[in-house]
Amino acid sequence: VATGAPERGPGTEAGVAALDEFSLIARYFDRPGAERQGVGDDCALIDVGGTTLALTSDMLVEGVHFLPGADPRLLGHKALAVNLSDLAAAGARPRCFLLALALPRADESWLAAFSRGLFALAAEHDCTLIGGDTTRTPPAQAGGAQRGPLTICITAIGEVAVATYCGRAGARPGDDIWVSGCLGEAALGLAMRRGEIDCDAMEIAPSHRDACLLRMDRPTPRVALGRALAGCATACIDVSDGLVGDLGHILARSGVGAELRWADIPRPGWIQNLDIATQHRTVLAGGDDYELLFCARAADRTRVAALAAPELAVSRIGTIESAPGLRLRNGDGTLLKTTLQAYDHFASGP
Amino acid sequence: VATGAPERGPGTEAGVAALDEFSLIARYFDRPGAERQGVGDDCALIDVGGTTLALTSDMLVEGVHFLPGADPRLLGHKALAVNLSDLAAAGARPRCFLLALALPRADESWLAAFSRGLFALAAEHDCTLIGGDTTRTPPAQAGGAQRGPLTICITAIGEVAVATYCGRAGARPGDDIWVSGCLGEAALGLAMRRGEIDCDAMEIAPSHRDACLLRMDRPTPRVALGRALAGCATACIDVSDGLVGDLGHILARSGVGAELRWADIPRPGWIQNLDIATQHRTVLAGGDDYELLFCARAADRTRVAALAAPELAVSRIGTIESAPGLRLRNGDGTLLKTTLQAYDHFASGP
Repeated sequence: VATGAPERGPGTEAGVAALDEFSLIARYFDRPGAERQGVGDDCALIDVGGTTLALTSDMLVEGVHFLPGADPRLLGHKALAVNLSDLAAAGARPRCFLLALALPRADESWLAAFSRGLFALAAEHDCTLIGGDTTRTPPAQAGGAQRGPLTICITAIGEVAVATYCGRAGARPGDDIWVSGCLGEAALGLAMRRGEIDCDAMEIAPSHRDACLLRMDRPTPRVALGRALAGCATACIDVSDGLVGDLGHILARSGVGAELRWADIPRPGWIQNLDIATQHRTVLAGGDDYELLFCARAADRTRVAALAAPELAVSRIGTIESAPGLRLRNGDGTLLKTTLQAYDHFASGP
Repeated sequence: VATGAPERGPGTEAGVAALDEFSLIARYFDRPGAERQGVGDDCALIDVGGTTLALTSDMLVEGVHFLPGADPRLLGHKALAVNLSDLAAAGARPRCFLLALALPRADESWLAAFSRGLFALAAEHDCTLIGGDTTRTPPAQAGGAQRGPLTICITAIGEVAVATYCGRAGARPGDDIWVSGCLGEAALGLAMRRGEIDCDAMEIAPSHRDACLLRMDRPTPRVALGRALAGCATACIDVSDGLVGDLGHILARSGVGAELRWADIPRPGWIQNLDIATQHRTVLAGGDDYELLFCARAADRTRVAALAAPELAVSRIGTIESAPGLRLRNGDGTLLKTTLQAYDHFASGP
């Protein structure tokens, strides 16, 4: 998630109006300052001695970013994962984090499960909890509302090699556009959880439903890939808002346009059996996949392709162009009649 | 506020039971790790190259730490001030901060005022906003509850000279106990705002009422004093929970006891005209003053006294002793019949 950028997620009411609201908010907090490296990127950067730190803060609110009653172990994982994904996009090595929690109550089994999920991912990335804050949520209101909402704010700190840091502003015409893994499952998982799609009518197999929900609930931050891309990628972002929206951030910050080839955008085989509108919606506009979307010089194509691992593919999905805007080309060479704007809007609703 | 410690403030329901709940919470998040300097202190410390950073995260929740409808300019000030106060207690030079906000709505006049209060204090301490996150609070509930609560999480980062860092664990028998400024006004301001005291019946002059409310709403982090104490104080904490409670943290971490001299504890002259129970309650147990409470060798008495400035006194209020527990002595030499426990309890209610 970008420094200061709005977040979307389950239950959000964000739409075009809300995005405008958040542009307004951003205006009030966007001040010039000495320590403004990384502004508009996934992390803020500060120089400390000879080291550059990447810092990111993400707040997850019950009823906005996760549903009430969400599995606490998965929530502990996800709260840290979204921050580690920001560090991954910055090519940073995770180092430590602070955890601020507003809790409706001290429920021992909830705490045990949440901390288990949190610390398992932290250990995997050698990222230490160094401090934070614990507080209560406000008392239940007269209207009958429960205490809440449970609110989690994690600030993660990593180290970056500043010489190879790319951010979002370095994409140049002719660069390849790449994405890791597969897209679309997390958005389908969210739609399932919200009861917005009928899996039976769409003939989605139970194992695929489970895979979608797991993708939604338990994202994998692409930390190793992010670090391997240092010195090779010209721009990088994590796919949290959706492919088109997040690519839009790179295009805007880099002052370029792009063409994407629909046929090359990686999605699981079974998703290719769904109706095309659902495919577009989930693969192009669905967020929460937390894959890395990045650009690299065409000359580095072999080097990038070599970063693919058995457990994580990298796919070349398009090209940066000097003409502004985003063009999406079908397999037969025709342009898909869609615009970035339309997808942004769609992504925010219904 | 201590790393991982519970916070109290306006409207909290915290009491002895709640404190036990938070001990439970702390147990789940207190893991040994490589980066565990400063644990139990006001900030966490990490070494980055040859530099040591102090980091602190504080979450302020509407209805818990401030009342709905609180003046946004003062709120912007206070949200940063409580974090800078933690840096002050660590003797750190403030450097930058991240701001995560969950907002019920994007109200332009609220944002303008909040950011004005925030940036005025940030500029005063040359502390730059480097990033963060903005999100919505959950939608209004069917029961009629409004969107909310407004939640502010600031993570502040400062630099410390680790050779002179003291934390809370260094107090030794024979050390003097000192406190900056005056105590009691913030607690009275909170009681006024909650309608818990009758200012007319207590004959509190309007100008004193205003001073108390301002002290509550607009704390001044003692950053310069905190830095000046480096190499001189043996232990330091900011008074956020109340003198007795916060001194208790130093005593527990240092494995010592203390005697406090009631007559020497600084409070405004007019507070000395209030009934003695109110004085004890506000001066000994009232939080939110954000003064620095610290210990120093008796041999450094002159050096510490010289740190007093026209705008900020330092008062010697007691002595660290080897016998555990806290003894509070009246001006006539008798012991005040009160215990740390009793004050903790009182501070948490009603």
